[in-house]
Amino acid sequence: MAKLWSPLVENLEPYVPGEQPKVKNLIKLNTNENPYPPSPKVNEVVSEDEIAALRLYPDPDSSRLKQTIASYHGIQKDQVFVGNGSDEVLAHSFVAFFKQGSAIQFPKVSYSFYPVYANLFEIETNTKGLKKDFSVDVDAFTQPNGGVIFPNPNAPTGICLPLSDIRRLLAENTESVVIIDEAYIDFGGESAVSLIDEFKNLLVIQTLSKSRSLAGLRIGFAMGNANLIEALDRVKNSFNSYPLDRLAEVAAVASFEDETYFKSCCDSIIDTREWTVEQLLNKGFDVLPSKTNFVFAKPNHDSAKNVFNRLRSNDVLVRYFDKPGLNDYLRISIGTPKEMETFIQVLNAL
Amino acid sequence: MAKLWSPLVENLEPYVPGEQPKVKNLIKLNTNENPYPPSPKVNEVVSEDEIAALRLYPDPDSSRLKQTIASYHGIQKDQVFVGNGSDEVLAHSFVAFFKQGSAIQFPKVSYSFYPVYANLFEIETNTKGLKKDFSVDVDAFTQPNGGVIFPNPNAPTGICLPLSDIRRLLAENTESVVIIDEAYIDFGGESAVSLIDEFKNLLVIQTLSKSRSLAGLRIGFAMGNANLIEALDRVKNSFNSYPLDRLAEVAAVASFEDETYFKSCCDSIIDTREWTVEQLLNKGFDVLPSKTNFVFAKPNHDSAKNVFNRLRSNDVLVRYFDKPGLNDYLRISIGTPKEMETFIQVLNAL
Repeated sequence: MAKLWSPLVENLEPYVPGEQPKVKNLIKLNTNENPYPPSPKVNEVVSEDEIAALRLYPDPDSSRLKQTIASYHGIQKDQVFVGNGSDEVLAHSFVAFFKQGSAIQFPKVSYSFYPVYANLFEIETNTKGLKKDFSVDVDAFTQPNGGVIFPNPNAPTGICLPLSDIRRLLAENTESVVIIDEAYIDFGGESAVSLIDEFKNLLVIQTLSKSRSLAGLRIGFAMGNANLIEALDRVKNSFNSYPLDRLAEVAAVASFEDETYFKSCCDSIIDTREWTVEQLLNKGFDVLPSKTNFVFAKPNHDSAKNVFNRLRSNDVLVRYFDKPGLNDYLRISIGTPKEMETFIQVLNAL
Repeated sequence: MAKLWSPLVENLEPYVPGEQPKVKNLIKLNTNENPYPPSPKVNEVVSEDEIAALRLYPDPDSSRLKQTIASYHGIQKDQVFVGNGSDEVLAHSFVAFFKQGSAIQFPKVSYSFYPVYANLFEIETNTKGLKKDFSVDVDAFTQPNGGVIFPNPNAPTGICLPLSDIRRLLAENTESVVIIDEAYIDFGGESAVSLIDEFKNLLVIQTLSKSRSLAGLRIGFAMGNANLIEALDRVKNSFNSYPLDRLAEVAAVASFEDETYFKSCCDSIIDTREWTVEQLLNKGFDVLPSKTNFVFAKPNHDSAKNVFNRLRSNDVLVRYFDKPGLNDYLRISIGTPKEMETFIQVLNAL
């Protein structure tokens, strides 16, 4: 029967997302979701009129959202691309820029979807180890390549490079597209979007899933030179005319229009993160410096796998990666202060 | 700058969807949207609680929706795949089944996105002319091929093949996947879903955009042998873990749970279509027999292009395809009875 499949399908190794458990009353610190609901303005715009209008197709260009993002970031509308979650934006970017013939480069430890896209789109890859302090080694990315991509802050380490490092890489690597995947940038990092006018080969990808509490609506976007955006639009318009639905578009616009709520959620998460880091350090964990809504921490009295399992049996779900180089650590999303207090209490009781 | 693009991007010829005009008070009969709002049950399920829950990722497997569709169609859950509109389902199907080495076959006149996907995924194509009566010639699809795809009912003709023709094709063509794209099946055609247990190479694709008034939410699905669905899942999970957002999933389930509303909308549209056909015939148009929510009709006193432009300047928007073989016709979506009366009045006044 497999003969009916395209040959490449046999060789795919699909991405496995963090578990979405059906159990209630679990403290869910495993998929870096925001513990706070989206802006109340999202509630307001998802109105009966909008629902009645669902009979109509969305704007295929998502013009209103593109303009909103452009204004928010002080760039032009034709420097913005939007998609059905940053995963779709990443996928289209691989097709638009990385099907070049030479291998693309990314860190050995980073978002584990990158090798999956490369496999799907038949793109060669060349991974580079992290530095000893777990940070991304940008100087390793300057040999000729078919493209460079890495998250900043990186996942699952949480470590953020300063803009000066990104600039140094861009100054050295001018012949291929460099994608900075900023899913977690709003929790204390500095965005590379300020560099898109200077470097025509820079694409910055962000998402509304983490800092804007809209993981459930699937909205991601890319910012870069209009020429790069044109390539993305060509791919998108050869794949799905309307990737973003009507409710996602109005909700996303509403979220960008509520800066106060956005800042206050991000600030709360940063405060809770710092409190959590302190508690973990006090308990003898090694904790990498995080600029994200999670911490990557290594227990020193027991194996990470054991701690993961014992947390799980106490209704606290964190993420454990059973991979060399990562399997000493746990990735712990930052929840509400109350959730993190319970998490620390459960740890204390183990 | 184009050197930063993947070479294939230069050669893409993106799909151009029907215009989504910003002008108000237009009678919009150009994109086959449903004139009625979605089921009132959709309103109920898009609740404040659901909006608060948008901070969480959706179920990556959309299990509840898959189970709902399976129950509705009397099949198993592992025979169902869902995606972000049937366009995404089609795109993944091209990757999963049609990247085979030999050319895929589809009618010369059919959904104009098929050659666009083939171009994006570097798949060879072999198109077959329609029969003299504009119906799909299934007997032309029985030579060795890398796959077969066509809409039933076909677009933009509106003509539906009987199930006996689909069965004849499947009996002859057993070595490649046959995709029946049933976007318009609920307006009077007979679905091939009843054949999926018998023919392991049959994939049936449907959408909630037309008959269920949810074009704005982007929900499509495929039904076929579990082996075919596994291939689609492998591609989907290598592209985007969560293509369907939380609101889309609950709305889709609610729509399937309101059979009375669904039937009554479909029946109204069918009645209005038959009335419209009669009026157009009375005015001397040639009208192809439609089992869809649109009619494909040829004016005989003036060119289709002129009629299109004159309707447009009278605030009635229909679809005109400026392509040989189609450019004598107009594709007119079926609106409310009042909209269609106005349309006929405007035609009379021209």
